[in-house]
Amino acid sequence: MNETASTRSNASPLPAGARIGIIGGGQLGRMLAMAAARHGFHAVILDPEENCPAADVAGRLIVAAYDDQAAISELAQLCAVITYEFENVPVASARTADALKPVFPPPAALEIAQDRLVEKASLNAIGIATARYLSVESARQLHEGLKAFGGEGVLKTRRLGYDGKGQIVFRNAGDDLLPQQAIERLGAVPLILEERLDFAMEVSIIAVRAQDGAIVHYDPAENTHDHGILRRSRVPALLAVDQSRACARAARDVLKALDYVGVIGIEFFVMDDGRLIANEFAPRVHNSGHWTEAACAVSQFDQHIRAIAGLPLGDPARHSDGVMVNLIGDEIDALGELCRQPATVIHVYGKSEIRKGRKMGHYTTLTPRSCG
Amino acid sequence: MNETASTRSNASPLPAGARIGIIGGGQLGRMLAMAAARHGFHAVILDPEENCPAADVAGRLIVAAYDDQAAISELAQLCAVITYEFENVPVASARTADALKPVFPPPAALEIAQDRLVEKASLNAIGIATARYLSVESARQLHEGLKAFGGEGVLKTRRLGYDGKGQIVFRNAGDDLLPQQAIERLGAVPLILEERLDFAMEVSIIAVRAQDGAIVHYDPAENTHDHGILRRSRVPALLAVDQSRACARAARDVLKALDYVGVIGIEFFVMDDGRLIANEFAPRVHNSGHWTEAACAVSQFDQHIRAIAGLPLGDPARHSDGVMVNLIGDEIDALGELCRQPATVIHVYGKSEIRKGRKMGHYTTLTPRSCG
Repeated sequence: MNETASTRSNASPLPAGARIGIIGGGQLGRMLAMAAARHGFHAVILDPEENCPAADVAGRLIVAAYDDQAAISELAQLCAVITYEFENVPVASARTADALKPVFPPPAALEIAQDRLVEKASLNAIGIATARYLSVESARQLHEGLKAFGGEGVLKTRRLGYDGKGQIVFRNAGDDLLPQQAIERLGAVPLILEERLDFAMEVSIIAVRAQDGAIVHYDPAENTHDHGILRRSRVPALLAVDQSRACARAARDVLKALDYVGVIGIEFFVMDDGRLIANEFAPRVHNSGHWTEAACAVSQFDQHIRAIAGLPLGDPARHSDGVMVNLIGDEIDALGELCRQPATVIHVYGKSEIRKGRKMGHYTTLTPRSCG
Repeated sequence: MNETASTRSNASPLPAGARIGIIGGGQLGRMLAMAAARHGFHAVILDPEENCPAADVAGRLIVAAYDDQAAISELAQLCAVITYEFENVPVASARTADALKPVFPPPAALEIAQDRLVEKASLNAIGIATARYLSVESARQLHEGLKAFGGEGVLKTRRLGYDGKGQIVFRNAGDDLLPQQAIERLGAVPLILEERLDFAMEVSIIAVRAQDGAIVHYDPAENTHDHGILRRSRVPALLAVDQSRACARAARDVLKALDYVGVIGIEFFVMDDGRLIANEFAPRVHNSGHWTEAACAVSQFDQHIRAIAGLPLGDPARHSDGVMVNLIGDEIDALGELCRQPATVIHVYGKSEIRKGRKMGHYTTLTPRSCG
């Protein structure tokens, strides 16, 4: 990552009615499509599934695989600008689109985010602390690495992991897998061993950069995970002022270094001694920012659309505090009860099938704004 | 209107993924479609225009005239429940749909709202004060009526007026039209002469009734009109507590009397002496309730969807005060500047053509909640 000034000073906003292409039609694509509509733009979704969640709220759907370069070209030809809802979009597809129309966030950011090792190295290169990590290509390397990290560590696939999938934890305990078993279980793919951190809290920050280089950020949220899946995000996070500022500074540094346009989500571990350790960043709107839809005049989805459309960013202040809770699997069946809950904003994703561990919706319960 | 208990105690909620039919695909249909999506339902729009505002955010569109009974039947067959976004849906169409699937609000409410004279008589019948009015079928009747009202009055078509269209004001001044001219200008249609009220303020209340008879209402908004078109709505309205209560009581009485399901908007004039005079009601979500989308956890659109879907109503409390301003005609060109405005929620309707007097969008600027 190089610190560069913005290369896009000629940011004139998209005209009303312009088409915005969104690669990926899950719940994030769905919420982006609705935000595009609220700004007077038409969303075109590319997704392999005909009845993907975004299809229902977008003017047009291209049903195609994410690596179908002809379909990606069709999307780019139809649209004035292209974005994506998930970080596993093939970089080749992002580059195909980028050859025809602007792609935001930039494909280079996507490429970095897709490899945990490159991601951590890039963060370290601009002075942002991460857990210690090692590339692992053999059982021997894993063994050595675990020894170096005191017997503990998390072995992860470098690519294509999400929601805790593709991870094996070593706890320096009797039931740990043997190195060879662990490597076999994750398959013949590049791996990374990360130091296991005994953190006090997980927080994340949602920030956005416009085409003219302007940056705004929301206050950090405090996140709770359950089996690797985000369970709840609370604002304000119980952070000291200097910790909040450190999150914002890190976000700003990453956005500038990547010459980024759009929303980014960056996760941090907060250590007992107060240090912030970056975990990862997502080059997209982020589950831990869903509370912004309920507690702010301008949501992360609105901000992302504004950024990629060349519109000015909005006020990231929140009018209320809040707790966002994901509805996972059959928790969505409680919709009726949730409707009765005071001060609660509900968002259902319209997924046709309930599956265990599947994010089906979320809700945010608001409380009057504290001084946090 | 008869005071009846609810006839629908068997309100089990629509299953996830059920289809909701919406007659009318303008901005209200669009916002209803998005609310349906947020609750996990699919919207099917019926509108004569292929590129109507709602088409872009609804899973399916039936392009047909509102009086195309075959198309209305198709909509009803496709959907679990039917609603509408405007009060000029032909009653015959509402009844065609109602023969197949539940139509909310009930067609009887639609029928009453379509005729200013019947509407006022219905309000008076349950003790709600309106301006004095007279049916006008001849120049002579108009002349007599104006005399009775002190030379002043507003002559309106009984049916199909909106945004100040189909109205002629008599000010007891030299430039008033002659009765015969006025009647000719409005055409050979049933007319009503209404007393011209010298009111201090216009307010409206948005209320909603569920299928089990539960009712909630938002705080009244203070409205400003410009050339017959709503310009802005402010909450809280500067009303005394007993005036706010009177609005709520009137709304409750109307909803019960009509055995209503869904959102209603009722407009009142506030007289210098503090009296509330009902102007009209709209059997649908209402422009003066758009602020609820920005200032409440549960918007009028959400409430309407919940009511017609048999879900429990939501908390109508507001977390913030706010002013909603309509963007009319080329005011939409200020979108870029509006994006910079603090604490402002923007909603653009995606209409393909800017026309003078056309509602193109709205925004709501929030302020911390007062004690009002």
